Amino acid sequence: MTDSNLDSFFTPDSLAIVGASRQAGKIGHTILRNFSEGNYQGDVYAVNPNADEVLGYECYDSVKDIESVELAVIAVPPQVANSVIEECIDAGVAAVTVVTAGYEEIGGEGQKRQDELEELLEGTATRLLGPNCLGVWDAYSDVDTLFLPDYKLNRPPQGSIALISQSGAVGSSVLDMAAEMDIGISRFISYGNQADVTETELLEWLADDDKTDAIAVYMEGVEDGDAFYEQAQQVSEEKPVVVLKAGKSGKGSEAASSHTGSLAGSYEVYRGAFRQTGIVEAQDVEDLFDRARALAYERPPDGKNVAVITNGGGYGVLSTDKVERSRLEMASFADETKEKLANVLPDYGTPHNPLDVIGDADVERYEKALEIVSDDPNVDAILCIALLQPVPLDSDIIETLTEFNDSIRKPMVACMVGGEFTNLHLKNLEHNRVPTFKTPESAIEALEGLHMYGEWVGGEGEKEV
Amino acid sequence: MTDSNLDSFFTPDSLAIVGASRQAGKIGHTILRNFSEGNYQGDVYAVNPNADEVLGYECYDSVKDIESVELAVIAVPPQVANSVIEECIDAGVAAVTVVTAGYEEIGGEGQKRQDELEELLEGTATRLLGPNCLGVWDAYSDVDTLFLPDYKLNRPPQGSIALISQSGAVGSSVLDMAAEMDIGISRFISYGNQADVTETELLEWLADDDKTDAIAVYMEGVEDGDAFYEQAQQVSEEKPVVVLKAGKSGKGSEAASSHTGSLAGSYEVYRGAFRQTGIVEAQDVEDLFDRARALAYERPPDGKNVAVITNGGGYGVLSTDKVERSRLEMASFADETKEKLANVLPDYGTPHNPLDVIGDADVERYEKALEIVSDDPNVDAILCIALLQPVPLDSDIIETLTEFNDSIRKPMVACMVGGEFTNLHLKNLEHNRVPTFKTPESAIEALEGLHMYGEWVGGEGEKEV
Repeated sequence: MTDSNLDSFFTPDSLAIVGASRQAGKIGHTILRNFSEGNYQGDVYAVNPNADEVLGYECYDSVKDIESVELAVIAVPPQVANSVIEECIDAGVAAVTVVTAGYEEIGGEGQKRQDELEELLEGTATRLLGPNCLGVWDAYSDVDTLFLPDYKLNRPPQGSIALISQSGAVGSSVLDMAAEMDIGISRFISYGNQADVTETELLEWLADDDKTDAIAVYMEGVEDGDAFYEQAQQVSEEKPVVVLKAGKSGKGSEAASSHTGSLAGSYEVYRGAFRQTGIVEAQDVEDLFDRARALAYERPPDGKNVAVITNGGGYGVLSTDKVERSRLEMASFADETKEKLANVLPDYGTPHNPLDVIGDADVERYEKALEIVSDDPNVDAILCIALLQPVPLDSDIIETLTEFNDSIRKPMVACMVGGEFTNLHLKNLEHNRVPTFKTPESAIEALEGLHMYGEWVGGEGEKEV
Repeated sequence: MTDSNLDSFFTPDSLAIVGASRQAGKIGHTILRNFSEGNYQGDVYAVNPNADEVLGYECYDSVKDIESVELAVIAVPPQVANSVIEECIDAGVAAVTVVTAGYEEIGGEGQKRQDELEELLEGTATRLLGPNCLGVWDAYSDVDTLFLPDYKLNRPPQGSIALISQSGAVGSSVLDMAAEMDIGISRFISYGNQADVTETELLEWLADDDKTDAIAVYMEGVEDGDAFYEQAQQVSEEKPVVVLKAGKSGKGSEAASSHTGSLAGSYEVYRGAFRQTGIVEAQDVEDLFDRARALAYERPPDGKNVAVITNGGGYGVLSTDKVERSRLEMASFADETKEKLANVLPDYGTPHNPLDVIGDADVERYEKALEIVSDDPNVDAILCIALLQPVPLDSDIIETLTEFNDSIRKPMVACMVGGEFTNLHLKNLEHNRVPTFKTPESAIEALEGLHMYGEWVGGEGEKEV
C-alpha cells in the first residue's frame, strides 16, 4: 500500500492463468481463451497441475515453475485459492488478480478465508486485486480477465473513458452497453472485495494514465472515506470523475450492505463529499456514460448559457423545459445574431433560442446557423438536435458536425432521435468524439455535468482543438 | 364536429393523393409510393393535372373526376391547397388529410389561408385533418401519409399502442424509435394545426378503437381545455392515456407558442387536470413509450409493493434506491416466502428483497424464485432483472419469462442491461408483450405509471391472461 504503481495489472510483460481449465465454459478456460484469441503481446502461461496442455498452452504445475510472471490471474476453487496465492507471493509475482469468489461476501467460512488472505499479503511486495472480482479489461494492452464470453459481452472500442466498478455485474453489463453504443473505453476494472487494492488507489492510478480523459465509477460505499476524499480532490484537478452511487436510500443502503458488505453510509455525506471534490454525480447507468462522454470529449463551458438548434420545433420546446429545470439557462441571442440568422432562415422562421431551423433544413443551413450561434458572446454551449427523418437533411451532417465541433472552443453536444438509420449516424458521430444522445433531456444532463465540473475546476479544462 | 366518426382517415375504401408528383423526393411522390409499395387494400387514385401517369397510376385532373373517394390526401403547394380542398368538399369526400404547410403556423398570409380554410369547412360533412401535419400511419389498414421515406423512418410492427402528436417531427422520430425497439403500434396521428379535427376528438375515437390498448400523446397545448378535460376523463376509464406535455416552463411555453401557436398555459393547471382525469404523465420521449408499454401489456397492481429479482446484486441496490424515490415501496417478503427461497438459493444467498439470485443463477433458479415471490401476498408487482452476460443464464430465459408473465395476474416488468446479444433478447421479450427496459430505473418508472393508473381506475384494469 506504499505507492500506487498498479501498472502490472494493466500492462504486464508476462502473465499466468492459474486454474486454466480444459473444460469450455469454466472460468479459467474462458480467461485463457481471451488471451489465446486476443492481441495481448506479452508471454502467457497456463497453470494446471492436472493437465499437460490447454488451448495449445503447455501447463505448469505451479507459478513457481515459471521463470518470470508479472501478473497471475487466479481462477481456482476458493478452497485452494489462498495456497495458490501464497505461491505467487513466494515466486515474487508483482500483481495477482483473484477472480475466485467465496470470500467475505459469503460470510462465515469466506470471512475467515478473506482474513487469512489479508494476513498473507502483509509486508509483501505483491499487490492483489479482488478477490470476488472480474479483474481488468484493458483496451490498449488487451489484458482481459473477464470470464464472460465475448458473444455475450462485446468488448468496446479503444477510447478515453475508464470505468471502475464495485459490482462485477453492473460493470460488465455497462461495458457491454458501451460496446453497443460505440463508446470508446480505456480501462475497465472490477475490484471486488478490496483485500488490497482499493477504489481510491485505482482512481490515483487512472489520474496519471495518459490513455484516460474521464473516469466513470460505480460504487456502493468506500472503505476509507478520508483517503477517498483526499484522493478524489486531487484526481478531479487532473481529469473529471463521474460517480454513480448506489445505496442512497435507507433500504438501498441495507441492500448494499448485504451485496458487497459496504457501509453505504449516509447519502448526504457522500453527496457533500462529491460536491466538495468536484465529482459529477450520475443518476443511472446510462447517465454515467452520458456525463462521462461529454466530460471526456469536450471542455467545460465558460458559463451556463445554452443555445439549442433543431429541425424539429417540438424538441426545441422540450429542450427549453429541460434547460429551465437544470442549472443551465437558455441563452438570449444578441441582436446581431438574430439579424444574421434571419438571412439564413426561410421567411417563416424566427431567429430566437431555441432555434428552429425548420424541417426543410439542409446541411448548409445547419452549418450557417451553427457558425452564427457559436459566434454569439451570449452563448456558452451548444445543443445541436438533428433529426434525420426529413429528406432534406442527409448523411453529410455527420462530417459537418464533426468538423464544426473540432473547430470551436465552446462545447457542443448533439442529439438524434430515431431508429436504425438514425442510430447508425449517431454512432458515427459519437465515434468522431462528438457526444451524441438519444434524447435532448440526456444531452442537457450531460451539458449540465460539464458545466458543474467547469465551475469546480474554474474553467481551466482544455478541449482538444 | 357533431360526432367523432373519424374512420375514413384510418380505414377508407378508397383514397386519392392530390399532388401526386412525378419527381422522386417530392412529398406527393413519396406518399403515393407508400401506397404503391405498401399493403393497403382499397382503391388508390393519383391526382395531378400536369401528368398522365405517376408510378403506374393513371392521373386524374381533379378529385371531381373520380367516381368515389373516401379519403383525399392533399400534398399541393399552399397557394392552391384551399381550392383543391374545396373540390373535395364539393365531390363529397368524407375525409381530407392536408399535409401542405404554410397556414397559421407561418402567420400573415398563412393565417389568412387558415381562416379561409375554416370558413370553407363550415356546415359541410367533410372532416379535415391538418393542415401542416404528417397525417396518419395505420399499422392495420396500411394507410400511410407520412412523407418520410422508410429507409429514414422505419415503420414499427403492428401492436396496441396508439400515438398522437401535435409535432410532426417529435411524432415521426418517436415512431422510428418504436420501430427500432420493436414496440408494436396501432395507429399514429400527426394532427398539425387542427383546422377541424382536434386532439380531443382523436382521443375519443381511439377510446373506441379495438386495436388500441393504450394511447400515448405528445402535446404542447390544447385548443379547448374544457372539452379535453371532459373527454380525457371518459377515455381514461376505457384505457390508459400517457401524455408528454411540452412547454412546462415559462420559456418552454414561449417556445411552444412560437412553434405550434399553442397557448401552453400554466403547467400547474395541466398537471392538475392530468391527475384528475387519470392521465399518466411522461418525462421524456423514451419515458412516453416506457409507460405506455407497461400500461398496454400489463394490468395495474393491487398495491404498491414491488419485488425485485436480479442476478446482479448492484442492480438490486440501484432498484431499491429508485423504488424508494418513487410512489412505490419495496415489498417485505413473508416468512414462508423466505423459507421457500432459502431452498432455491445457494448457501451464500439471502432470501430478502431485492432478491439476488446470484450471478451463477440459471433459468430454473429464476423460474422457481419468480413462482415463490409471485405467490407472496405482500408482493403486488415484480421487476425481473436478467443479465445475460454470465454463462449460466441462457436464452431460454425469454420463453420462461414470457410464459410466467402470461400465467400470473400480478404485473411484471423486465430489465436487461447490455449490448448486442442482450438487446436481441430484450426485443424478443418485448415482442412477447413483456414490457422490457434497458435500465432498472426506467422499468420502475413504468411500474409507477401502472400503479398510478391503477389507483385512479380503482384496480379494475384487466391483464390479458
